[in-house]
Amino acid sequence: MEVDDDRSPRASSINANDIDFDTVNQSRTERQTLRENSTELLVEEIRERSRQTQWQLNYQEAAIYLEEGENNDKFDTHPRDQSALPAYEVAHNRWFHLLDLIAAILVLLVAICERPAIEYFSLPVGIHASLEMLGLLILSLELGIRFKWVGWRAFFKHKRTVIKSCTILFMLIESIVVLVRQTSHFRVTRALRPLFLIHTYYCRGVRRITRQILQSLPPILDMIILLLFFMLIFSIFGYYLFSRNKDDMYFSTLEKSFVNLFILLTTANFPDVMMPSYNQSKFYSIFFIVYLSLELYFLMNLLLAVVYDTFSNLEKTKFQKLLIHKRIGCQHAFKLLVSDQNQHQLHMKHFMGMMKKYHPSKSRRDCYLVFKCLNTSNTGWLSLEEFYGIYDVAGVSWKLKNEDRIWSSSFKHPFNVIFKAFNTLVRFKWFDYVIYLVIGANFLWILIETIRLSAKSVNLANYDFTASWASIVFVCIYSVEVIIKILGKGPMEYFTLGWDVFDFLVTVLSVIGVLGERFENSFYYVIVLRPFRLLRLFKVKKRYRDVLGTLFVLFSKLTSLAIVTILVYYFFAIIGMEMFLNVDLKNCCKNTSVEDFYAYDNNSIFHGYYYLNNFENILASGVTLFELTVVNNWFIIMEGYAVRVSQWTRVYFMLFYIVMMVVMNIIVAFVLESFLFRIQYRRQMKLDDMDDDSVYRVEVSLSEEEVDMCEKPFSILSGHLIQLQAQADQPEPYVYKGERSRTKDDFSIKMYGDEVKTWLLEMEKERTSIIESMKGLRTRQRPNSLNLEQNGVSEQLEVNC
Amino acid sequence: MEVDDDRSPRASSINANDIDFDTVNQSRTERQTLRENSTELLVEEIRERSRQTQWQLNYQEAAIYLEEGENNDKFDTHPRDQSALPAYEVAHNRWFHLLDLIAAILVLLVAICERPAIEYFSLPVGIHASLEMLGLLILSLELGIRFKWVGWRAFFKHKRTVIKSCTILFMLIESIVVLVRQTSHFRVTRALRPLFLIHTYYCRGVRRITRQILQSLPPILDMIILLLFFMLIFSIFGYYLFSRNKDDMYFSTLEKSFVNLFILLTTANFPDVMMPSYNQSKFYSIFFIVYLSLELYFLMNLLLAVVYDTFSNLEKTKFQKLLIHKRIGCQHAFKLLVSDQNQHQLHMKHFMGMMKKYHPSKSRRDCYLVFKCLNTSNTGWLSLEEFYGIYDVAGVSWKLKNEDRIWSSSFKHPFNVIFKAFNTLVRFKWFDYVIYLVIGANFLWILIETIRLSAKSVNLANYDFTASWASIVFVCIYSVEVIIKILGKGPMEYFTLGWDVFDFLVTVLSVIGVLGERFENSFYYVIVLRPFRLLRLFKVKKRYRDVLGTLFVLFSKLTSLAIVTILVYYFFAIIGMEMFLNVDLKNCCKNTSVEDFYAYDNNSIFHGYYYLNNFENILASGVTLFELTVVNNWFIIMEGYAVRVSQWTRVYFMLFYIVMMVVMNIIVAFVLESFLFRIQYRRQMKLDDMDDDSVYRVEVSLSEEEVDMCEKPFSILSGHLIQLQAQADQPEPYVYKGERSRTKDDFSIKMYGDEVKTWLLEMEKERTSIIESMKGLRTRQRPNSLNLEQNGVSEQLEVNC
Repeated sequence: MEVDDDRSPRASSINANDIDFDTVNQSRTERQTLRENSTELLVEEIRERSRQTQWQLNYQEAAIYLEEGENNDKFDTHPRDQSALPAYEVAHNRWFHLLDLIAAILVLLVAICERPAIEYFSLPVGIHASLEMLGLLILSLELGIRFKWVGWRAFFKHKRTVIKSCTILFMLIESIVVLVRQTSHFRVTRALRPLFLIHTYYCRGVRRITRQILQSLPPILDMIILLLFFMLIFSIFGYYLFSRNKDDMYFSTLEKSFVNLFILLTTANFPDVMMPSYNQSKFYSIFFIVYLSLELYFLMNLLLAVVYDTFSNLEKTKFQKLLIHKRIGCQHAFKLLVSDQNQHQLHMKHFMGMMKKYHPSKSRRDCYLVFKCLNTSNTGWLSLEEFYGIYDVAGVSWKLKNEDRIWSSSFKHPFNVIFKAFNTLVRFKWFDYVIYLVIGANFLWILIETIRLSAKSVNLANYDFTASWASIVFVCIYSVEVIIKILGKGPMEYFTLGWDVFDFLVTVLSVIGVLGERFENSFYYVIVLRPFRLLRLFKVKKRYRDVLGTLFVLFSKLTSLAIVTILVYYFFAIIGMEMFLNVDLKNCCKNTSVEDFYAYDNNSIFHGYYYLNNFENILASGVTLFELTVVNNWFIIMEGYAVRVSQWTRVYFMLFYIVMMVVMNIIVAFVLESFLFRIQYRRQMKLDDMDDDSVYRVEVSLSEEEVDMCEKPFSILSGHLIQLQAQADQPEPYVYKGERSRTKDDFSIKMYGDEVKTWLLEMEKERTSIIESMKGLRTRQRPNSLNLEQNGVSEQLEVNC
Repeated sequence: MEVDDDRSPRASSINANDIDFDTVNQSRTERQTLRENSTELLVEEIRERSRQTQWQLNYQEAAIYLEEGENNDKFDTHPRDQSALPAYEVAHNRWFHLLDLIAAILVLLVAICERPAIEYFSLPVGIHASLEMLGLLILSLELGIRFKWVGWRAFFKHKRTVIKSCTILFMLIESIVVLVRQTSHFRVTRALRPLFLIHTYYCRGVRRITRQILQSLPPILDMIILLLFFMLIFSIFGYYLFSRNKDDMYFSTLEKSFVNLFILLTTANFPDVMMPSYNQSKFYSIFFIVYLSLELYFLMNLLLAVVYDTFSNLEKTKFQKLLIHKRIGCQHAFKLLVSDQNQHQLHMKHFMGMMKKYHPSKSRRDCYLVFKCLNTSNTGWLSLEEFYGIYDVAGVSWKLKNEDRIWSSSFKHPFNVIFKAFNTLVRFKWFDYVIYLVIGANFLWILIETIRLSAKSVNLANYDFTASWASIVFVCIYSVEVIIKILGKGPMEYFTLGWDVFDFLVTVLSVIGVLGERFENSFYYVIVLRPFRLLRLFKVKKRYRDVLGTLFVLFSKLTSLAIVTILVYYFFAIIGMEMFLNVDLKNCCKNTSVEDFYAYDNNSIFHGYYYLNNFENILASGVTLFELTVVNNWFIIMEGYAVRVSQWTRVYFMLFYIVMMVVMNIIVAFVLESFLFRIQYRRQMKLDDMDDDSVYRVEVSLSEEEVDMCEKPFSILSGHLIQLQAQADQPEPYVYKGERSRTKDDFSIKMYGDEVKTWLLEMEKERTSIIESMKGLRTRQRPNSLNLEQNGVSEQLEVNC
């Protein structure tokens, strides 16, 4: 039985402004007199219209709540009234996000063409300052819209936004100064530009990792203090022990002693730092062995352990918070979608209305399938518990199960047979083995060819690099394989599988390489890309699949990490450029131990070339900073600037080392965590291969009537058929299959299954207890403040979680 | 009710040889005629005596089973008959273990005094060869005894023993050759000497870690292959890319390209290896950045992840195996202690008999307490389930609970009050704070003094190092603190607490330091030990307690790891010495890039001193190998030998790098595992501090009668009082407290609580099912083969676990 359930929507926080719904309800006495005037119909129409408007608003707000839950946006930035809605929609538009991202990147890239610019990219001051200004203005536009939508309170409560506003203001003033003076001044504030990129929508992952790094700083700092404490004690020790030796310049003062032990922590000056005292007595080596064992092999490993523990704990907490945040989003949305008459069940009609706002591109059939999939109780109404599942199912892409044949079966006669043959061939086990054999042969061939070339000491400049017949044969085989696979599997399936895409790219590159060899001789080095193709061989063994699988699965997160690293580099590069711009390192450091590295006289055979490690433009700075990251011989670069500029420049280099140490530890912890999660998940679920489990699958079957109902464009969908079928218990003819790839959250839910249950139980308990305690209060308050109250409840819940 | 339960012991696998128990039983018909001859009494006496002998044997065997369970010895090396018992006892004697250890160390230490000997330690060939022979003979004695006790079958089945025998045999022959020729020949086999140390009883931990390293090798090897594969591809790539540049000597041939990329993996030649090509085009840096990111930052971290995963998994599996092994040991022992009449319950008398063999030093009262503690059902008889707890309780040390007052309360009048005052003072919170304040002041004082000294550039050789008044004051304060603490807490409590022992040692060192300063001026550098005292400051914060606590708790395991590392060093040092003995590195490598490091001409101000990194004796080799372990600039040492000896010596150095990489990864994994276990345990048990939970405590109360019974030396103990008391349900006056420190196994049992239960359930299930299936067989076999059969059962269980 279907009940008309759109009488009275529950009050949304976004009130319909055009027609005051409350007053319409309240003025009942007035209306009684109106009725006698027989204008009753008009009033009814007005009421009906206002009701519909209110429902539409509710749908939209529910969709917004669901989005906020998904994106982990705070609910206190939720648009408070209808006038804020357009700003909200603009701010959450894809194109606007893109514009924001482009502006942020533009501001970052200005560093390439402003002084010190990269060769060929240098632009006049007027142009690059204007470009920067343009970028900054677009970014402030974003801020303005945000201000409009969240209101000034939430705006100033949100720390990140405030910092961004201040930075933009400051930078705008600076770029005006630059424009007016027509020359760049000492602008270290440019180092803050990465903030804008972090703030953009598409850099959510970057933001998350930045937050995790900041949150794991306190324990890391503790450990670094311990490290520095030991370093200080050892440097006092070392000073007393070695300063009597006049040959030993490493410990002649306490300051030198400390600096050299700091460098020793990175091992970069070992064993040199030991040699003078080792020459005096062999037993002095004990000092260094103890120092390194304690600091490098014990404390640094503990630092890693601390970082790993903090990091994996944060991951779990974050997962828990997100899960509960999503649930609260669902609760908010659910509250807006049920009517006052039936507060515990959600009608199909309202669900469809909401889905139209939430996933506008979904067809009616898909939405119906989502509803039916959620409605496990088969009542035709969704309960809150069932509605919680929406995040799992909403993103699924549906298709008919008997469509589950190869892509080519709908082709015309001769082709479908041929393509089917290809398909069979591709799925044939020996097909793969033959390909592996070919790859192996190819590798051996390349290796032997190179060894022969190297043994003959042919100068490669004169060597004819035209592709040999063998390389052409191999590339042909690969191309044929790729074509067969694409035709057999169909492009859709082929280009969604990581390994196949990899194969495709490598093959295309090989073809380009061979063609390049044919047409231009200098294009020779592309041929060396071919051996990478051999990575496919590693698919054979499970451990390698794990390793490379980790690489594929976590590519997006690794990218975020890489972006974070690059932004840190950017920060330090700007500071480095401002400080060391016109320092020439050639032949610096005369009469020090690093003299040779900076030698520049064309006489010596062995150039150190270290004067190349400078800060002359943003890219060169990047490479220099990478060298500092790798740590080996980093002190030589530091020495150069310490001698040329000031002893205090060491602070810059040491600070960079400590920051990179933290970032590197986070990277290690991250790789560790991801890999261990993957392996432990596989072990716990007793899976042979992660790939088997990487797709989330659901199945829903529809009856004839349901399909009819979905296909009629204007019919009102309802849930009564679901209930009827459940009673009839007949098999339904149309089986739909829904699939989407699993995210890490899906895995986490399975992995921490028991814990998840406890968290949710606790959350429910807390929620009901708060609602219970509210009930007492509520009776004394006016009834339509209910919604606000319950907002309060869930905010409190958020704080507690 | 007490039943006389020593009628018929169950057949032991060690049969009483003096009197055949079976024949006595069997010859019943003969005895019937004897009885008529009224010699019945004599027969009874003989039977009684044989029964007692059998029981004594059973006690001993049960104790042996329990020991085997505890030490994780295999049950198939269990002594098979009585004649093997003396050999078994000799082999498990503490003094014999010690002799074995000394012999193994002796053989190792011979390396100090045989050619190439350390200065002052050099001995004539005759003497050191004889010493070695002596050591080897003692070691073969151990083997001989082992052979006697386990029999030749088990002897040759045990791989480690066989390898040891072969090595000893070979070495004996070699040392005879040395004695005869009176000169050492090329003896690389000396590198195998560490095997003997690993084999000794006291190096169980070392053995365990070695086994874990060997077991985690396969996955590590997989990863190393992947690393090398990428390295090969990149070296082909690098060769094609850079060999055209004539300045670039790093990539001129494929071989050089590979070697340099191998070194680059250790970062030791970065950025030098990049500079020539970087000078040509800045974009060549991409090659190196990609290579390092992939190999160093991704794959090496994955390698760590793989090692960590394997290692922590092995730890868990090992724990599981040990747990089940212990249980099986208990089952064997239990079977021998119950009588045929009552196979499911163990009488107090037999328990006491077994305890006398198992823990001979325990008093009767302690054994009784252990029994009562185990007997949770209060029946006065132990069931198998209760008997399983013996490993937990057997090692506990007992004392009366009301003895739990300060140590000095039994002193004479004036003293007990004074000491009590000390005790109160020590337990006073502010006492500690004051001490911390003093320590902080001391540190600041040392720091300022050193900075002043360093700033004045005083040559320390001329500086008067007599202790200043301040240092004397500080040392006095510390000494007074230590004395107050010892007197207040009592030496017993003081010297069992890690932190107090640390304080004590540091204070004693400080006192020695100050005295040294007073009496001899050259003893000055002891004063630098004082700041270590400051470590105590870190007790204040929880994280530091975790860090330093990890250091204390895992000291024994870290020692094992250090020993493993030293043994690996020994192995490579011997090989290195044999290969590079008379190679002089001074001024080697002319016209290569490492020329300066080996320069030796007294003209240059900057000595590289790298010629000191040689293999001239075992200690120098150790330092050289440590430098190779630290990895920085290791290739310079490799280059030196590659130029002087042969290009192929690179294999030695690269192999050492790979081995140390594995060992280092194991160390990291180990530190990680221990620390994370500690932190996670604390988190799971919701503890504030691990120390609160580090002691295993039990309480047992005895009645007046029980204490009486225990104190009478010849009374036979029985369990009927336990049962009586359980029925009476009266409070018992004497409460005994048992304590022992928790081992990692105890923590693991709590940590993996649920899993442990499943393992044990599975084990029980398997056991009963095997016994069930055996029952059918048993009926067809003769009854006294029961014991052997059940041995079979448990061996099968072992295999399954």
